[in-house]
Amino acid sequence: MQKMKLKCITCGKEYSAKEIRYNCDCGDLLEVIIDFSLFNRTSEEWKQYFDNRKDKFAFLRYKDFLLPDLPEDKIITLGEGDTPLYQANEKVQDYFGVKDLWFKHEGMSPPTLSFKDRGMVAGVSWANYLGIKKVACASTGDTSAAMSAYAANSKTIEAIVLLPEGKISFEQLAQAISYNATTIGLKTDFDGCMKLVKDLTAKHKIYLLNSMNSIRIEGQKAIGIEVVQKLKWDVPDWFIIPVGNAGNISALGKGLRELFDLGIITKIPRIAGVETEAAPPLYKSFINNWAELKPIKAKKTIASAIQIGNPVSFKKAVRELKYFNGVMEQVSETELMDAKTIVDASGISVCPNSGTALAGLKKLVKKGTIKPNEKVVVIITAHGAKFSKSIQEYHENKENKFANQPKIINANLNSIEKIIGEKK
Amino acid sequence: MQKMKLKCITCGKEYSAKEIRYNCDCGDLLEVIIDFSLFNRTSEEWKQYFDNRKDKFAFLRYKDFLLPDLPEDKIITLGEGDTPLYQANEKVQDYFGVKDLWFKHEGMSPPTLSFKDRGMVAGVSWANYLGIKKVACASTGDTSAAMSAYAANSKTIEAIVLLPEGKISFEQLAQAISYNATTIGLKTDFDGCMKLVKDLTAKHKIYLLNSMNSIRIEGQKAIGIEVVQKLKWDVPDWFIIPVGNAGNISALGKGLRELFDLGIITKIPRIAGVETEAAPPLYKSFINNWAELKPIKAKKTIASAIQIGNPVSFKKAVRELKYFNGVMEQVSETELMDAKTIVDASGISVCPNSGTALAGLKKLVKKGTIKPNEKVVVIITAHGAKFSKSIQEYHENKENKFANQPKIINANLNSIEKIIGEKK
Repeated sequence: MQKMKLKCITCGKEYSAKEIRYNCDCGDLLEVIIDFSLFNRTSEEWKQYFDNRKDKFAFLRYKDFLLPDLPEDKIITLGEGDTPLYQANEKVQDYFGVKDLWFKHEGMSPPTLSFKDRGMVAGVSWANYLGIKKVACASTGDTSAAMSAYAANSKTIEAIVLLPEGKISFEQLAQAISYNATTIGLKTDFDGCMKLVKDLTAKHKIYLLNSMNSIRIEGQKAIGIEVVQKLKWDVPDWFIIPVGNAGNISALGKGLRELFDLGIITKIPRIAGVETEAAPPLYKSFINNWAELKPIKAKKTIASAIQIGNPVSFKKAVRELKYFNGVMEQVSETELMDAKTIVDASGISVCPNSGTALAGLKKLVKKGTIKPNEKVVVIITAHGAKFSKSIQEYHENKENKFANQPKIINANLNSIEKIIGEKK
Repeated sequence: MQKMKLKCITCGKEYSAKEIRYNCDCGDLLEVIIDFSLFNRTSEEWKQYFDNRKDKFAFLRYKDFLLPDLPEDKIITLGEGDTPLYQANEKVQDYFGVKDLWFKHEGMSPPTLSFKDRGMVAGVSWANYLGIKKVACASTGDTSAAMSAYAANSKTIEAIVLLPEGKISFEQLAQAISYNATTIGLKTDFDGCMKLVKDLTAKHKIYLLNSMNSIRIEGQKAIGIEVVQKLKWDVPDWFIIPVGNAGNISALGKGLRELFDLGIITKIPRIAGVETEAAPPLYKSFINNWAELKPIKAKKTIASAIQIGNPVSFKKAVRELKYFNGVMEQVSETELMDAKTIVDASGISVCPNSGTALAGLKKLVKKGTIKPNEKVVVIITAHGAKFSKSIQEYHENKENKFANQPKIINANLNSIEKIIGEKK
């Protein structure tokens, strides 16, 4: 019996989950609705069920909660998930002003080191279930890497990546290329690529895997449930998450809401989304009492993955933020890189986009929105090793607060001893 | 009661494990000897013990087998280990000529994406146990990244990294810098740095964490035991591993030997070590009936982590290779990059150094040394995302067998359809 369907978030019109469709006839976004009542499990039975499946990989462990209609033999997994939940050390706690501080590090996820793997195990497996032979997206970074890796591993699915020619370095491309995606550089900008990938997937049996695909987003719910299972179904006071296209904050909220509805968690956390000052459309809506989206032209930011002025999942995100008594914050380039660097320097390498969430935490503590004794989980979305240029630029500039520069000296013991304070 | 001691691999002289020492008085290498009899466990009890600890992080799960004398409260962990054991897909099986083919992917290890994390959780935790405040190494790549991350997380231990100034790009440095290591560029070459780090650590209470440190090497035994536990204590016919300084192949062999001695595994696998043609000192010894080491000047290779002509752990490695009826192989730059690229293209991104092991597998199958029906586990030592330059160089050159180049076209649907074969 089918447990999933697609439903318009505005007009409520319903479609079969197996229908390949990204928008309602009315034009608005769709979301996956799961009829959990068909499982006939109490909240205790749900917890037991997940706890008994700890030795399974994350997507399979939570499949009933993510994509129950997906047959197990259609799953294409690359061992994604089960990422570390790091506790911040004292130095980091002091910097941010909260003691009970945790980092859910999705940048440690196999295979491509970002939270996109959570979505793509869902999206590409679903494509596999539907018998689709081609998947496409218009991303140039983490999204294309993750989509390409899963497609590559399937053997039967071709990945097609569209990107603006001349605006992308080969290094940024390296992952999609190495995962054997058909990589097409178009003489246009990113918006031009996005339009063409929509046209392409509308016309042919090619599955669109940008974040407007609601099946893909379901996979990302695993991040939140993994946190609360690790905490023995206890719930932190706050989740902090960087916001770009607003897909991930929507997935986090939807998942936690469903867990609460099922009684698996019994407390509603608050959620803080954080944008950069270069691209703050949700922040602007928030300070105007959740006003309607006014798309803006995103300025250049080192947090390139969230340089988005017209977020696709705006409506979904606002709905979740309202439900979770959420807030939005915006941060400067300096704030986000300082925050990133402090966490890096505790042995936990994070991407600049996650630095945004971290800097937002600091501001919200200072404002008194987040209390020093509250339990806070920050979602880290990618590994810092994928963004070494940002590390280079920060540390090369002595003006930066936490810049750590190499000391260049002559090759003798005496000189080394002086630097490290061992000179007697 | 102390269960560990240090013992010279040549003259047999013994030292306390708590003594800070890297060589015997006779000048040769030391190794850790664990008196497993003091645990009083049968082989079944050992297996049960490890199986019951599956919910613990890898280093703690195996601590009795790695560093039994280390108190638990001295461990500095960053969630390392529990890396995926990937099964190769059919396309990859076909390329290498073996069906039962697995990749133990240490490049997916938190926090720094290489097998060095396995060694550094041991080495830095041991330094913490000994009350040491400074650790040092002379590496420029994965070793310094891992050492720096663990030291950073400890809060009390400073990391000192020595490297040859002007011979290292800032990008290579990015990780050690971001993990807040004291990074010293010396006006000398790598050998000069190695000599100075030895002098420095001999003179001061600074702990040397290059691979001549036998405590660190014990941590790397976790890789082999994790493989066989995952296989329900079954043992593959072959382990294939890239060889540079020969520390990791020594650790793999020592760990498997100890597991066999304890009856935890009941079969001896074979081990194949693989070097590049640019730096094949162990291969040369092997084809000369395990002749004594003749240090060579390593030529430049894209597998930069194993560009080593005078491997520190030569004697240990040869001992293990003899015990495991092992072989050595050497491969060309083209062979290793082709092999890497084929595995990348299956959705599993690997470093060029691991490409060496992969190419060696292909050659050994062709030679008949490895049979097509044998079960083979290749140790992948780091994530490909840390080596995007090698990806770029390979795919940019059309001459390369599996080069995947972006197609640059005008921004219209028609042109895209032509490329992806959807033009009706």
